[in-house]
Amino acid sequence: MAPRYAPSLRSRLVPLLLLLQLGFIAIYAFWTEIQSNVNPHGSNFSKIYPEFQDVHVTVILGFGFLSTFLVRYGFSASAFNLLVAVIATQWAIILNGIESFRGKIRLDLKSLVEAQMCTASVLISIGAVLGKTNPVHLILISLLEVSGFIFNKWVLQTVLNVQLLNSIMMLHIFGAFFGLMLAWILYRKGSEQGFEKEKYDHRSGSFSMLGTLFLWVFWPSFNSVLVDSGNPWRKFGAVCSTYLALAVSAVTAAALSVLSSPKGKLNLIHMQQCILAGGVAVGISMSVVHQPGDAMVIGFTAAIVSTVGHRYLKTQMLLAFQCHDTCAVLSTHGLPGLVGWLANLLLQIKDCDDHTTAIPIRFAVFHISTLLITMTNCLSMAIITGLLLKWDFWRTPKSKKCFDDQAFWEFPHLAVKK
Amino acid sequence: MAPRYAPSLRSRLVPLLLLLQLGFIAIYAFWTEIQSNVNPHGSNFSKIYPEFQDVHVTVILGFGFLSTFLVRYGFSASAFNLLVAVIATQWAIILNGIESFRGKIRLDLKSLVEAQMCTASVLISIGAVLGKTNPVHLILISLLEVSGFIFNKWVLQTVLNVQLLNSIMMLHIFGAFFGLMLAWILYRKGSEQGFEKEKYDHRSGSFSMLGTLFLWVFWPSFNSVLVDSGNPWRKFGAVCSTYLALAVSAVTAAALSVLSSPKGKLNLIHMQQCILAGGVAVGISMSVVHQPGDAMVIGFTAAIVSTVGHRYLKTQMLLAFQCHDTCAVLSTHGLPGLVGWLANLLLQIKDCDDHTTAIPIRFAVFHISTLLITMTNCLSMAIITGLLLKWDFWRTPKSKKCFDDQAFWEFPHLAVKK
Amino acid sequence: MAPRYAPSLRSRLVPLLLLLQLGFIAIYAFWTEIQSNVNPHGSNFSKIYPEFQDVHVTVILGFGFLSTFLVRYGFSASAFNLLVAVIATQWAIILNGIESFRGKIRLDLKSLVEAQMCTASVLISIGAVLGKTNPVHLILISLLEVSGFIFNKWVLQTVLNVQLLNSIMMLHIFGAFFGLMLAWILYRKGSEQGFEKEKYDHRSGSFSMLGTLFLWVFWPSFNSVLVDSGNPWRKFGAVCSTYLALAVSAVTAAALSVLSSPKGKLNLIHMQQCILAGGVAVGISMSVVHQPGDAMVIGFTAAIVSTVGHRYLKTQMLLAFQCHDTCAVLSTHGLPGLVGWLANLLLQIKDCDDHTTAIPIRFAVFHISTLLITMTNCLSMAIITGLLLKWDFWRTPKSKKCFDDQAFWEFPHLAVKK
Repeated sequence: MAPRYAPSLRSRLVPLLLLLQLGFIAIYAFWTEIQSNVNPHGSNFSKIYPEFQDVHVTVILGFGFLSTFLVRYGFSASAFNLLVAVIATQWAIILNGIESFRGKIRLDLKSLVEAQMCTASVLISIGAVLGKTNPVHLILISLLEVSGFIFNKWVLQTVLNVQLLNSIMMLHIFGAFFGLMLAWILYRKGSEQGFEKEKYDHRSGSFSMLGTLFLWVFWPSFNSVLVDSGNPWRKFGAVCSTYLALAVSAVTAAALSVLSSPKGKLNLIHMQQCILAGGVAVGISMSVVHQPGDAMVIGFTAAIVSTVGHRYLKTQMLLAFQCHDTCAVLSTHGLPGLVGWLANLLLQIKDCDDHTTAIPIRFAVFHISTLLITMTNCLSMAIITGLLLKWDFWRTPKSKKCFDDQAFWEFPHLAVKK
Repeated sequence: MAPRYAPSLRSRLVPLLLLLQLGFIAIYAFWTEIQSNVNPHGSNFSKIYPEFQDVHVTVILGFGFLSTFLVRYGFSASAFNLLVAVIATQWAIILNGIESFRGKIRLDLKSLVEAQMCTASVLISIGAVLGKTNPVHLILISLLEVSGFIFNKWVLQTVLNVQLLNSIMMLHIFGAFFGLMLAWILYRKGSEQGFEKEKYDHRSGSFSMLGTLFLWVFWPSFNSVLVDSGNPWRKFGAVCSTYLALAVSAVTAAALSVLSSPKGKLNLIHMQQCILAGGVAVGISMSVVHQPGDAMVIGFTAAIVSTVGHRYLKTQMLLAFQCHDTCAVLSTHGLPGLVGWLANLLLQIKDCDDHTTAIPIRFAVFHISTLLITMTNCLSMAIITGLLLKWDFWRTPKSKKCFDDQAFWEFPHLAVKK
Repeated sequence: MAPRYAPSLRSRLVPLLLLLQLGFIAIYAFWTEIQSNVNPHGSNFSKIYPEFQDVHVTVILGFGFLSTFLVRYGFSASAFNLLVAVIATQWAIILNGIESFRGKIRLDLKSLVEAQMCTASVLISIGAVLGKTNPVHLILISLLEVSGFIFNKWVLQTVLNVQLLNSIMMLHIFGAFFGLMLAWILYRKGSEQGFEKEKYDHRSGSFSMLGTLFLWVFWPSFNSVLVDSGNPWRKFGAVCSTYLALAVSAVTAAALSVLSSPKGKLNLIHMQQCILAGGVAVGISMSVVHQPGDAMVIGFTAAIVSTVGHRYLKTQMLLAFQCHDTCAVLSTHGLPGLVGWLANLLLQIKDCDDHTTAIPIRFAVFHISTLLITMTNCLSMAIITGLLLKWDFWRTPKSKKCFDDQAFWEFPHLAVKK
């Protein structure tokens, strides 16, 4: 079976990768240039570089290892994450550059960071379809989703005048619901019984823990990197708020996980995904969180919603809506994202000096529009992507081969010598 | 057996975690604020942020994975480390803030770093009781030990006028002897025969190696972050000294490990713990180490003491003193810490221009007082903590369940599908 | 067998390590000092420190885990890498300091970084003989190769006036061909049949992936750290070019790996080694790569050469030349290094305004001389080293004990309790 299935990957994946990469090289060669008129006193580089590296670590090492919890899918999880990340980043730089296009797209560390954050939305989405897709699918998702995300960012900025930071931070909501819609469209019969290889053991659980801790440790950089550095205490505030929200999430997720367990035990998946909920929620409400107390309450609420979602919602989604969400991105990024969105609205109303009812209503209309536009763009793009992926041309892996590295990887040494 | 034991964790752990976290949120909401009057030229953030992140990596990834060497205890080791770290850090920020309290506790990156270093003393202590305690115990330890450590810091600073850097660096000695005293009080009958699951294999050994290397790589940041940045060459010196001491330790530990082995082989635990001895010792004597040669001699001595301690002392401690020290914190942090303390004294005497005998005696009295006060505070706090933990109310895990993730973690996928 | 073999390691390794370390301590104590006249406005430390740490991570965590792919050799791979790195770095600081010696060798972060990059050439070489040597061999290699590499750097700088950046970046070519020559001299009969333990599994493959991703993420720092910081856009350019070249390599390596596989599957080793080819090639041509397009074309070519080399050349080298190259350093560093060298020449000719034939010929002569001098130094030093290592005095491990941690490591817990 394996030999008959495998060659198809070659006839689809190789031309796609090579054409895509050659196309990117052509575009970069003719229409980009490395920024050269930087601030002459030369302190810029050391200011932004460490934060750029932290985001880089988050995207490649954090997301890459977070999804290695599947016992037979470790190679695919980390390597496909890298592949998707580099393709999505190259594509995002081009799309982001078109907006401010004047003859050449200018490359600098800021445009790389922005592109990597757009990429993060794709890395969230592919968590929902992890193990049930092949690399060709993942590359198509990354191209279409980045396009949709950047289109949405552009709409928010143009129509509603949303700030860059706020429009990019919608990545958690965009990524989660994009992934869910995909998982629903790509539903496979028999998912309710569970897949044979969809489980974790001590080894894969520990690798996944490593990815989680990378994300947890570098999340303050992820949230603060786009905060305006002209005002240094805003950056201090962003880092401290994110740190406190993550700390509260870790404690709360542990408590809720034990509380909701029939045997009073911790669940590894909760300790990996829900401890990040505070970072997600504070990220989305970053521009209005000014006090530690606010950040901690947001972290607390987000962790409760996330842990409860993990315990009860994942199965419901599968049974009631036929949506098999491998990494539970709904509870990890979707719901905490909505908590952050709500916190953003409430804090803005609270901070407002004017106590007439007109202002809260204006804020509410504004935020609800933001959310609705994002959801519309996200779901319509996901439907297009999902329908494209259902096309049999891409040779979807059979259910028996799901969650298994052997569908995509050579194991020469094992085969020959064992 | 497991079902009967497990529910108890719920009735103890959940209220403790939730009450603690809600209490912290209330304190932070009413009595803290994020520092806003930072230096206006805005270069502060990029100066301290990379070092803050390095300490963050040390505490979460370094200590978290260092203790994953136990073959069936990987989830607990890394997740409980995170839990203890975030609770201890939140508590340490509050206690540190009380000293300089003027209406509000001010939060900034420096207070976060300081709190994380106080936390490190707890992470060292729990190494001594790793695998023989439950999370409730660990949280109680973290609260009481941080209180004791910050009280000790305050006493040293007020009574003896010890500098902040020197008083915080006592964390290795404080943490190690606190942990030893706990291990002695919590001694279990039958420890001499060894526990069934107290061993490592290729997988857990490699994860532990990862933690060690994180600590080893980021130790220069850990030692230099609190060195006064007004004098830049002091920071350069701190980094270079720590690097050289660590390099010497690595070579020396390898040599001594082979020398003391009956079969002339390396021991993995020595290569993980003793290569850090130089960093510990130079950290404590940081304020008087000015030349590379001094740092290297300290690293050499510390590594010898540490490796010899690991090879011969660990068993002696168990058999003679009934003290079962899981991670051998005595040899990893305690003895190298004492070497550093002695080096501090000797170098200060050597550097002194005045060659009368009065000065050396004054220095000796000062340093011996520092050590005695620290030991007194450390041991008395450890006795209080130990007696509290012996209370059966906290439901200590049975010896059969020691060093086993299954006592605290759900394994749903494994159970259902294997 | 094991007990009879093992003691020999003690009688050789311990004196070597201790004498070497005591010698280093003596040299450092008498002839080095920590730089103290740094720039008074104090911004230097925060400028260079994050990049220093990134290089540190690359050398210890990146190279350390990259070579853990052998299923029974994980402890040795990561620990011996550390041992070799610290000995080579201490030795390189001394040798680099002799050039500019005025009474004392001055230590600062820049000299540490430079020494660590010289060390990288050794870490590449030992990849070729990984698993077939003992630690004594590795230490001798590190001493002799660093000497040869720094001699070569000095010759290039003095005779041909090559810049520091360019002469250090020859490390990939120097390291790869040094390693190959060693592997050829130390050839063992029976290597064609393959060694029993020369294979990888899910665990060791994932650890190796971790090392690869560390290298991949921190490679931009490795390439840019020595770029003159007086001109900040040069640094921006170095980081962006390296990032793009690495991104292109990742995509291209995946495509070529599938294309050249009989079953159309990915190969883990290709995804680990060939995705780094772009970083190697751009590093060597760093001083003339100014546009993103150039960097991407270099990354594309290097990845093709590297993947094709991995698929076809490794076996040929073994069968035709009796050269057993464990980590395939020829295809990972050697060939991409040559691609970078060629790109350096071609771009320099392209950039030149003068279109007479005299200039290209001068450039070609210059670059070919650089390469020939490097190869001569590299191969002659490798032959000396190889002949020294063949001496039976060092007790080479028997072929049955190759690629096995048990030859060098105690496994007390496993032995006693299983």
